[in-house]
Amino acid sequence: MEAIRIGFLGLGTVGSGALAALRAEPEALARRAGAPLTPVRVAVRDPQRARPVSLEGLAVTTDALAVATAPDVDIVVECIGGVGIAREAVTAALAAGKSVVTANKELIAKHGQELFELADARQVELAFEGSVAGGIPILGPLRASLTANRVRQVVGIVNGTTNYILSAMTRLGQPFEQLLAQAQAMGYAESDPSADVDGHDAAYKLAILAMLAFDSTVSEEQVYREGIRRVTPTDIALARSLGHRFKLLAIARDRGDKLELRVHPTLVPESHPLASVDDVYNAVFVEGAPVGQVMFFGRGAGGDPTGSAVAGDIVQVARDLLAGGRRSFAMAPARHRPVATIDEAESSYYVRMWVVDRAGVLATIAGILGRWQVSIAQVLQTPNRGAGDGPSAELVWITHNTTEARLRGALAEIAADEVCLALCNTFRCFGVD
Amino acid sequence: MEAIRIGFLGLGTVGSGALAALRAEPEALARRAGAPLTPVRVAVRDPQRARPVSLEGLAVTTDALAVATAPDVDIVVECIGGVGIAREAVTAALAAGKSVVTANKELIAKHGQELFELADARQVELAFEGSVAGGIPILGPLRASLTANRVRQVVGIVNGTTNYILSAMTRLGQPFEQLLAQAQAMGYAESDPSADVDGHDAAYKLAILAMLAFDSTVSEEQVYREGIRRVTPTDIALARSLGHRFKLLAIARDRGDKLELRVHPTLVPESHPLASVDDVYNAVFVEGAPVGQVMFFGRGAGGDPTGSAVAGDIVQVARDLLAGGRRSFAMAPARHRPVATIDEAESSYYVRMWVVDRAGVLATIAGILGRWQVSIAQVLQTPNRGAGDGPSAELVWITHNTTEARLRGALAEIAADEVCLALCNTFRCFGVD
Repeated sequence: MEAIRIGFLGLGTVGSGALAALRAEPEALARRAGAPLTPVRVAVRDPQRARPVSLEGLAVTTDALAVATAPDVDIVVECIGGVGIAREAVTAALAAGKSVVTANKELIAKHGQELFELADARQVELAFEGSVAGGIPILGPLRASLTANRVRQVVGIVNGTTNYILSAMTRLGQPFEQLLAQAQAMGYAESDPSADVDGHDAAYKLAILAMLAFDSTVSEEQVYREGIRRVTPTDIALARSLGHRFKLLAIARDRGDKLELRVHPTLVPESHPLASVDDVYNAVFVEGAPVGQVMFFGRGAGGDPTGSAVAGDIVQVARDLLAGGRRSFAMAPARHRPVATIDEAESSYYVRMWVVDRAGVLATIAGILGRWQVSIAQVLQTPNRGAGDGPSAELVWITHNTTEARLRGALAEIAADEVCLALCNTFRCFGVD
Repeated sequence: MEAIRIGFLGLGTVGSGALAALRAEPEALARRAGAPLTPVRVAVRDPQRARPVSLEGLAVTTDALAVATAPDVDIVVECIGGVGIAREAVTAALAAGKSVVTANKELIAKHGQELFELADARQVELAFEGSVAGGIPILGPLRASLTANRVRQVVGIVNGTTNYILSAMTRLGQPFEQLLAQAQAMGYAESDPSADVDGHDAAYKLAILAMLAFDSTVSEEQVYREGIRRVTPTDIALARSLGHRFKLLAIARDRGDKLELRVHPTLVPESHPLASVDDVYNAVFVEGAPVGQVMFFGRGAGGDPTGSAVAGDIVQVARDLLAGGRRSFAMAPARHRPVATIDEAESSYYVRMWVVDRAGVLATIAGILGRWQVSIAQVLQTPNRGAGDGPSAELVWITHNTTEARLRGALAEIAADEVCLALCNTFRCFGVD
C-alpha cells in the first residue's frame, strides 16, 4: 500500500518526540494506520543544531511554508509553536488541501475558529490532541467515548510548571520565588516564566477543552485568568490545616444560561482526586450526564508524552485519508455560548485577614457576611499574628457557595470596619458546596 | 437527514441507561452523529415489567432475533448479557449486515474473535466500550489517542463489587463474608456473587483490554484468575502497616517474549495512584512508550455510566454509517501472542507465616530464600502470635521481584523446615521492584 507522507514543521522537543514515535514501531503503526507513515520533509530554523533525532532520509529546509504546501506531503505536522509562522504555515497547508496535526495550544485557542472553518471548507482534518495535557487522552474521549454526554464541567490541572511549584511549596514551605528559581534550574520552568505562572498556558488549554466539551466557539480572551504568584507558604499551610491543597485549576462550567471559564489558584479538598495530583503530573476531571465523574491522569508535557499524542493523531488522520475522507476531526463548533463575567461567577472562597483580637470581632464579621448572604463553612483563628497597635489575630474562613459580587461587597464592608486590620489574601475554592 | 434507527435487545439496567441517554439530548446527539438517532424496536423478556424508561414509541417484542434482523433497524444494541441468546442475536445481526453495540464483556471475552471476523467479513462495526469499566473511556483511547504507543502494561481495578468489599474490609477490619452480605444488601453484589468475587468479571475485562492493548487475540481462558475470598482482615492490617493496600488487580503485561495475564488480590503501594481508588470506583492504568504512565478513573458500573459508553458507541457507529463505511471499530486482532503460565509469572510477593520464636529463625528462612535467589524487601515480625507448643511469632515478608516458580520452591522448603509452624497466606504485590 502506498505510504502516507509526513512533513514536519519544527523539530524541537515535541517534533522530535513525534518523529521518534513514528520511527520506533513503523510496522505496528503501518498496520494501525492502514499504510506506512513516512516522514519525508522537515523545516527547521537551524539545520546544523544537534537533535535527539536524526534527519537522515528527510529533505531538510528552513522554509516552513514550502513544506506546508509541498505536493509530496500528505499530512503536515506543525511543531513550531506560537502564532507567527506557525499560523501562516498551518493556514497555507489547510488551504492547499492538506490535513494538519499540531500540539500548538496558543494557535488553537487564539485562531481555532478561523482554522476550523478553513478545514471545513477544504474538507481536511485539523487534529490537536497534544495541545492539552500532553499524552493524556482527553480531546479524543470528549469527541468519541463521552460524546453522548451533556458535560457539566471540565476541571483540569493542565500546567506542569505551576503544579510542580505549588507541590514543592506545599512540601517544603518555601516561597514562590525560591521554588520558581529551582524549577528553572531543573528545566521545569522557562527563563521567562510568565506563560506558565501567570496562567496563560492553562487558559489556552481551557479554551480548547471548553470548545470541545460544550461544542461552542471559545477564545482564550473569554477565560478569566489569575496566576500563582500571590500564593504564599502561609496560605498553603493554613489551607492544609483546613483540609485543602492549592492547585492552579482550569475550570469550565456550563451553568445553563452561560459558561464559566476561569483559571486561578484554587483550594481543593484533600478528599477530591485532583488534590493528590502532584508535581509535573496533569489531570482532567470531567463531570457530565449520564457518565457522572471521570478523571484522566498522566504526564502533561515533555517530548515523549506529547509525541505520543501527536503521533496518535497522525495515525488517525492517515486512517481517515486512506478511507477517503475526514471523520475523526471534523468539527467547527456549532454554537456561540455566552460566557459569564467573573463578577457573575459562583464559587466558595478562602479569605485570610488580620483582625483586632477582642470579644465580638467574629460576630461583627459574621454579621456583615450574613447581610451579604455569604455563609461560612470553616473558620480558623490564630492569636498573636498580624499587625496593629493592640492585640491582633489571624482569621481565616472558607465560605459556602456564593457569587463573586456578594463576596466582594462583603469584603469591602469588612475592610472598612475598624475590627479589620488587613485583608491579606483571598482565593477561590473548588468542591465546597 | 434520515434518522438512524436503533433496535434494543434487552432493557435492564444498561439498556435502560443507554435508551435514557439517547432520549435526554436528542438534538445534541443528532448534531454529533450527523442524523437523528431514533429507537424504533425493542426486545424484552417481559413487556409488562416496570422499567425506569418508557416503551412509548417502540415496537415491543419478546423475540430478540426478530429485532436483530429487522429490516428497519440500522444499529442493534445488545444489552441482554451472557452468551446464550445474546451471542445468537449478535451473530444474526452482524450476519444480516447490521452494526452492533454491546456492553457484554462475557460475550466479547469468550467469543470476540469469531464476532470480529464476522464483522470484518460483512464490513460492519462491533463496538463495546461499555464492556470494560462502565463509563470510563478506555477502549476508545487505546484505539485512538494512544494508538502510536507500544503498551507495556495495562493494570486495572475493573470490578466495583470486589473493590467495595476490599475498601470496606480495610476501613472496618471486618471479614469478607460479613461485608459481602452487606454489599448484597446494598445492591453492590449479586445474590450469587461468584462472577465478581471469584474474579470472572475482571478476567473478561482483562481479556478485552489485553486484546486492544497488544493487538492480539486473547480469550478469557488464558487469564490466570484468583478471587478475593482468602483475603483476611489480618492480611489487610499487616499490609497496611507495611504501606500497602489490597486491590483485586487485573494485570496484562507485555514481557516481550510472552504476555502475562492475571487477575488476583494484590498489594499495591500506598503511593501508587491505584491504591487510592476506593469503593465502587474503577481505574485503568496504562504504561507505554512513548506516553509513559496514564490513568483513567471513574464509576465502573451502573446504568448511567455504562449507558454513557453504549450511547457514545451508538453515536460513533451512526457517524460511520452516515459517512459510508466502518472506521472507528474495525479490528480483528492481527496477532496471536503466546501467554506465560502462572509459574513463569514475575512478581513480588507478600508471605505471612507462623514461626517458632527463637534466635536464628529469621536467618534460617533468609538462608532458604537466598538459595532460591528470592530477595526480601520488607519484614515485619510480631511476637506471641500463631500456634504450636512453644513460643511462636507471626512473620510477614515482602520480596523483591522474582518468579512464581522460585517463590514456590522456597516456600516448599520453608514449610518443610521445623522453624515453620504454618504458612498462613501468600499474595502477589504490584509496583514493588
